[in-house]
Amino acid sequence: MPVRLDAAAADFEPRFRALLAAKREVSPDVDATVRDILAEVRRRGDAAVIDYTKRFDALELTPETLRMPPEAIAEAHAATPPATREALEFAHRRILAHHERQRPKDDTYADALGAVLGSRWTAIESVGLYVPGGAASYPSSVLMNAVPAKVAGVERIAMVVPARAGELNPLVLAAAHIAGIDEIYRIGGAQAVAALAYGTERIAPVAKIVGPGNAYVAAAKRQVFGTVGIDLIAGPSEVLVIADGANDPTWIAADLLAQAEHDAAAQSILLTDDAAFADRVEAAVEAQLLALARGETARASWRDFGAIILVPSLDHAPPIADRIAAEHLEIATEDPDALFARIRNAGAAFLGRHTPEVIGDYVGGSNHVLPTARSARFSSGLSVLDFVKRTSVLKLGAEQLRALGPAAIEIARVEGLDAHARSVAIRLNL
Amino acid sequence: MPVRLDAAAADFEPRFRALLAAKREVSPDVDATVRDILAEVRRRGDAAVIDYTKRFDALELTPETLRMPPEAIAEAHAATPPATREALEFAHRRILAHHERQRPKDDTYADALGAVLGSRWTAIESVGLYVPGGAASYPSSVLMNAVPAKVAGVERIAMVVPARAGELNPLVLAAAHIAGIDEIYRIGGAQAVAALAYGTERIAPVAKIVGPGNAYVAAAKRQVFGTVGIDLIAGPSEVLVIADGANDPTWIAADLLAQAEHDAAAQSILLTDDAAFADRVEAAVEAQLLALARGETARASWRDFGAIILVPSLDHAPPIADRIAAEHLEIATEDPDALFARIRNAGAAFLGRHTPEVIGDYVGGSNHVLPTARSARFSSGLSVLDFVKRTSVLKLGAEQLRALGPAAIEIARVEGLDAHARSVAIRLNL
Repeated sequence: MPVRLDAAAADFEPRFRALLAAKREVSPDVDATVRDILAEVRRRGDAAVIDYTKRFDALELTPETLRMPPEAIAEAHAATPPATREALEFAHRRILAHHERQRPKDDTYADALGAVLGSRWTAIESVGLYVPGGAASYPSSVLMNAVPAKVAGVERIAMVVPARAGELNPLVLAAAHIAGIDEIYRIGGAQAVAALAYGTERIAPVAKIVGPGNAYVAAAKRQVFGTVGIDLIAGPSEVLVIADGANDPTWIAADLLAQAEHDAAAQSILLTDDAAFADRVEAAVEAQLLALARGETARASWRDFGAIILVPSLDHAPPIADRIAAEHLEIATEDPDALFARIRNAGAAFLGRHTPEVIGDYVGGSNHVLPTARSARFSSGLSVLDFVKRTSVLKLGAEQLRALGPAAIEIARVEGLDAHARSVAIRLNL
Repeated sequence: MPVRLDAAAADFEPRFRALLAAKREVSPDVDATVRDILAEVRRRGDAAVIDYTKRFDALELTPETLRMPPEAIAEAHAATPPATREALEFAHRRILAHHERQRPKDDTYADALGAVLGSRWTAIESVGLYVPGGAASYPSSVLMNAVPAKVAGVERIAMVVPARAGELNPLVLAAAHIAGIDEIYRIGGAQAVAALAYGTERIAPVAKIVGPGNAYVAAAKRQVFGTVGIDLIAGPSEVLVIADGANDPTWIAADLLAQAEHDAAAQSILLTDDAAFADRVEAAVEAQLLALARGETARASWRDFGAIILVPSLDHAPPIADRIAAEHLEIATEDPDALFARIRNAGAAFLGRHTPEVIGDYVGGSNHVLPTARSARFSSGLSVLDFVKRTSVLKLGAEQLRALGPAAIEIARVEGLDAHARSVAIRLNL
């Protein structure tokens, strides 16, 4: 049974705080192991990667077979059943169209003094894309990580995906083909992250590594951060559904379960102003759980981390939603825009009764890599901006330097930075 | 003596690699100490902060005196000598004007199917600004960190600055006043980072912490990352000056020293096609070092980390500059734009003979918080974007859901996510 909180009750604040503070995921401390793996790959290159892949993935590779033959990628795509291939290509087109709008624009201008200032954006040269193996090897994630990099203009995307005992999800290869990736290595874990960060004989290093992974991958990404850039460290998935009593409770139950089936540590929260509706949703969840392939996972998530929050009216929802700062926010009400305008913290918002969050996972067009664990308070989902960087530009003539120089010299002086002052003064004969 | 590399020499590649790989900074391992401090502040709040401040900063505070009286901030501003105050206000206006152009725009549109997609930007609610004490307590840094947050619309900026034995740089307070900050706590170190991240009785927690600090502060920021957002971890400063032989060698020498005086671990690199010019610059550096207040620091930096790279022609500069990926890039040539167009990795670029990097430190208008240690390959300087976050928005009607639903169901099916498929299918009566 999920917890039930009543915003009008005296004990709401402490209980809500406890809900927010609940640790849903205990990461095993693998830092020391990962440190060793990184050092070994750095020292021994491909040989170390091959050794670890044999040990952890039961896969025998050689320097020649680390990389998957590009033909095999095209073949996996060709062998994909047409309905699936068309769905992935449809998703790809929509993700592409949305991300095309995110490309930042350069801005160069002269100010009133004639000084030229600018912001120039360029693509990151090369990016490593980590794709998990096994059950969490999702073709949709390949598209979501690869498309913004491609749109940004990243010239080289190197994908790594572990192939336990040689097994690889062919749909992951099909998605890579659709996204235009042909450099794929059959490696995973911290050793793959190390190979991407430091480079080996066969694998050129990249400038940034993105993509989800297990505790070893996450720890490795944290440790190589600085040598390369990394994306956000994704935690278990979450949804907050704000719904009035006019919804079909089976629809809302289905949305809560779509989140819960991801992971026993996922979190589904219903916020409503209608206690009877909440009861109906709960009953519908129980009924739907019975027929679910991943029912056990979803049941554990709903039982351990699910929550129902009752409010006197939905007018009380925005401050609560902002404190939850959910990865996914569904607003299933008559006028969702009005409520959404009053909420600032959410990774992605899904407005109206006909916008289940799942559409955003696949074919909406926006990215499904989103900030979890309340980090929507300060961060954003993956976008083209994660694959570009900005150089600020300044260009002065002698006249502009004369206009700006004295103030710079004065600040340098009071900051005790002599040589700073001189580098300006020497040009002004001061 | 700085190293001298010749791009045309047989040993260039290994020597250049060694230059790039040189570790300029050894961070002491303070992780365990910092972990204890964070835990104590989390447990005991203000009392712990006050204890640590007494121990580390020799300053006796009470819960009532943790925060600086707002009047004291205004008084420090009023007491600032007019020339200094005007210089800081001039800098503030220019930084403000440049950053105003960085505010990202919301983007909402309907696609061909009638699905409404959007990207909505909102300001981070509250930000903590760390300002170092002692010699590195720079008023310019207060402006550079505070202005983009203000422009973004951050409602609350809480500044912390250690006041060793009660001493505070009044110009830091003056700069805070100019930037519109009136919430300042006289605390520093890991304890201040903990107070901002977790909150105490007197200090409300923030959503993101920015600003430079020592090894304890950097370690604390890394450890609280996730609970709050953090900015980039700044390393020692760097400049790459690309200069032809037509420059005044004393100007270029002054620019190299302006970087070197920051820190013995700072790095100044001259890249030129003119060996005789390089000799003249080196001689000018030696001459100017004699008259420098921070001569010892600058000398150590130039000796240990300075470098001169000779190229057969400046046409060879771009690939070398991209591998260096300098925080600051000066291009002092006749046609700097042409060269700059071929370089992609740099935090900030300063074009032409009359644009010393120092202008950008203070009054150019762009930000002086920039990526160091080659991280310009994958990251950008501080900007308004660091103080906002994006929520993606999707809104469908029944018709759009019918158009998008089948592909989503197909992908959910092949990914083995039953409940995902159902959350769409149940709305389509499938």
